[in-house]
Amino acid sequence: MSISAGVPEPSPELLKRAMQLRAAAMQLGQTDNEQRRSALMAMAMSLQASAEKIVQANGQDLENARTEGLASALMARLKLDQAKLASAIEGVKQLAELPDPLGLRQLHRALDQGLVLERLTVPLGVLGVIFEARPDAVIQIAALAIRSGNGALLKGGSEASLTNVAIMEALKEGLAKTDVSSDCLELLTTRQESLALLRLDGLVDLIIPRGSNELVRFIQDNTRIPVLGHADGICHLYVDAAADLPQALRIAIDSKTHYPAACNSIETLLVHESIAADFLPLAIPAFHQVGVRLLGDAASQALGVEEAASEDDWATEYLDLILSVKVVADMDAALDHIRRYGSRHTDAIVSNDQQVAERFLRAVDSAGVYHNCSTRFADGFRYGFGAEVGISTQTMPPRGPVGLEGLVTYRYRLRGDGHIAADYGDGSRTFTHQDLPL
Amino acid sequence: MSISAGVPEPSPELLKRAMQLRAAAMQLGQTDNEQRRSALMAMAMSLQASAEKIVQANGQDLENARTEGLASALMARLKLDQAKLASAIEGVKQLAELPDPLGLRQLHRALDQGLVLERLTVPLGVLGVIFEARPDAVIQIAALAIRSGNGALLKGGSEASLTNVAIMEALKEGLAKTDVSSDCLELLTTRQESLALLRLDGLVDLIIPRGSNELVRFIQDNTRIPVLGHADGICHLYVDAAADLPQALRIAIDSKTHYPAACNSIETLLVHESIAADFLPLAIPAFHQVGVRLLGDAASQALGVEEAASEDDWATEYLDLILSVKVVADMDAALDHIRRYGSRHTDAIVSNDQQVAERFLRAVDSAGVYHNCSTRFADGFRYGFGAEVGISTQTMPPRGPVGLEGLVTYRYRLRGDGHIAADYGDGSRTFTHQDLPL
Repeated sequence: MSISAGVPEPSPELLKRAMQLRAAAMQLGQTDNEQRRSALMAMAMSLQASAEKIVQANGQDLENARTEGLASALMARLKLDQAKLASAIEGVKQLAELPDPLGLRQLHRALDQGLVLERLTVPLGVLGVIFEARPDAVIQIAALAIRSGNGALLKGGSEASLTNVAIMEALKEGLAKTDVSSDCLELLTTRQESLALLRLDGLVDLIIPRGSNELVRFIQDNTRIPVLGHADGICHLYVDAAADLPQALRIAIDSKTHYPAACNSIETLLVHESIAADFLPLAIPAFHQVGVRLLGDAASQALGVEEAASEDDWATEYLDLILSVKVVADMDAALDHIRRYGSRHTDAIVSNDQQVAERFLRAVDSAGVYHNCSTRFADGFRYGFGAEVGISTQTMPPRGPVGLEGLVTYRYRLRGDGHIAADYGDGSRTFTHQDLPL
Repeated sequence: MSISAGVPEPSPELLKRAMQLRAAAMQLGQTDNEQRRSALMAMAMSLQASAEKIVQANGQDLENARTEGLASALMARLKLDQAKLASAIEGVKQLAELPDPLGLRQLHRALDQGLVLERLTVPLGVLGVIFEARPDAVIQIAALAIRSGNGALLKGGSEASLTNVAIMEALKEGLAKTDVSSDCLELLTTRQESLALLRLDGLVDLIIPRGSNELVRFIQDNTRIPVLGHADGICHLYVDAAADLPQALRIAIDSKTHYPAACNSIETLLVHESIAADFLPLAIPAFHQVGVRLLGDAASQALGVEEAASEDDWATEYLDLILSVKVVADMDAALDHIRRYGSRHTDAIVSNDQQVAERFLRAVDSAGVYHNCSTRFADGFRYGFGAEVGISTQTMPPRGPVGLEGLVTYRYRLRGDGHIAADYGDGSRTFTHQDLPL
């Protein structure tokens, strides 16, 4: 998607589709766990039955992309072969087996005799999902939406349009045999529509962008609908004076190189000056050996880092085998640096001084703050959530890796027997506020 | 505040103050419960000691307002006498005694041996609060902020400027004797500053508007910072075919007249057509007797409602002794009406048919859905939260009446012993995901 033009008003046709989707989603929100579980199994089976067709459509998309000279990294993401599809279908089945995120009672309280308050988890309503390239994301997001009782309006990359249409057809055919309406999923196909989606306040409850930082930032800047996700992920590893150096190096290498394109990889290494002269001569050759290019401040250059880091480097998410290195006078300088340049995603300290570590854990205001382990653990699957919607760097919940619980909200229910507020104002009745079992 | 002009960029001076406030708030976020409790008691004592000065300043504000011909309703809200001040001070002391919303462990899980994940509640950071007229709100919000470990940037109405300055001086003097820095509270005094506050993304984490619907809507439309609150509160009461009519009337009268200016009062009464001919002849004189003006659709006019409701009426929050009345063919028509015109605030049904009531409780997508009781119970104090930040009608949490928990977020902490992600990719280690006691 080219993301430069203004955001148009939704067309009457889009509004109509969105309202139809919303109505279907309201019905979906009232289904029980078994109905939604069955719907996911039917989606999985239908994808299986249409596998040939989907892979063929993808072949056509790939051919078109090749003709148009799409970059090879994007071609790899676009490709959906039998193996990738099978793995996506397996993901749908796994989602079906996850615990129901709906109907959980979070609060249960008698306000007075016969006046009972509950707080229950309910679906958000309709998700708007905008993503680039990867067509398997359509499958994953559609399954997450239905599992959590939400409708979804999806817009994929134009490169994958034939694949996406084939996938959506299969998903809708699957749903048609279940208690969940196939109207709960809608695919947007034009760029105009996907922009107008940003204006569907009141019809779309949450926007989930899956793609480049540029895409996410554009969406955040152009909608009043809440956006789940993050633009930059500038994560830091601080190697403290009291670090075990081999451990620090092992964690630094993993945090940078395990998957450099991931948002939870580190971009900057901060090293306490008192151990810099021991640590950097150890770390520099180790990083070079695994192909990491290092950019450093003057102090780390003096200790062997060849290239200079510019001011911009501290604020850059490389998503690549590049790491900026800075020697800091003490932990407070490290904290200042993280506060100034960080994305409040995930930051870590390596130290054997428990007091120092605890201070770091308290002081860093990021969604994840780690001690003596790799930042790469910031992930919904690794946290044990079973599925991940994305990672949020906003301040308000949901924050950090978000599982199915990020796709639900709650509702208060109050049941009485003719109770009125005036009786509590004039003293004829008083609130008891007695908590009941959940 | 006149809310028409564009939103200016923050001045360097405002940015400096906001950064100073943020730094102080970061320190505040690391205080313990006892330190914040003591800070609130010191604030209360200091307000007490400055009571004379505050009331005098308020007298001057009132005099100026009188000269400028402020409406009498606003004059009443502006007035802060000894009694009102004492009650506000009592509120601060009560907040001090509420359970600490910080440091609550929401998740505790061993991802593997020696690799332990926690999710803990932490402050949001800095609150931006914009409110009109009522100077006692400064006291309440400042206390809520400090109790929950947040800094606050406050902007009150210009009518109350002398009172607000006197209150803020007292609060800061109180804090100066405690472990909480007096820099944690800042008062904005100019209109330029309060507009620029909307642009302080990254320095302000949540904006809380306290004032007219117009003010709230302007803020929602002009900031990327999350806004806690609601513009309209159009609440409905649906009187079902199976309603106990005297109970329905009692609940309707309370929901409309107990405090008509409140957001949780009903604006529209929906009546099932099968009982309309019995209910309305009973309800119309009862409403007239308590001074409620009724506006109705054709069917309710045929049953005695004198004035016609226009299309606009269904979408109007009267905040006054006015009620629109509509006869509906069945509950689905009531649900459609609520979906179309409601604010997703609080809606209620009166019915003795449990099945019908349960369907209503499931189908209405509002923060509060009630059965056989008044909508006026939608309130943090009545829910037993001890304090109320406001009522949110947004979809994402926090939703409905928001207590101190709406002013906190959470953070993940992961503690390891050299754990790296690569070991889990190559199968040399596997995640155990063992939940530990909270």
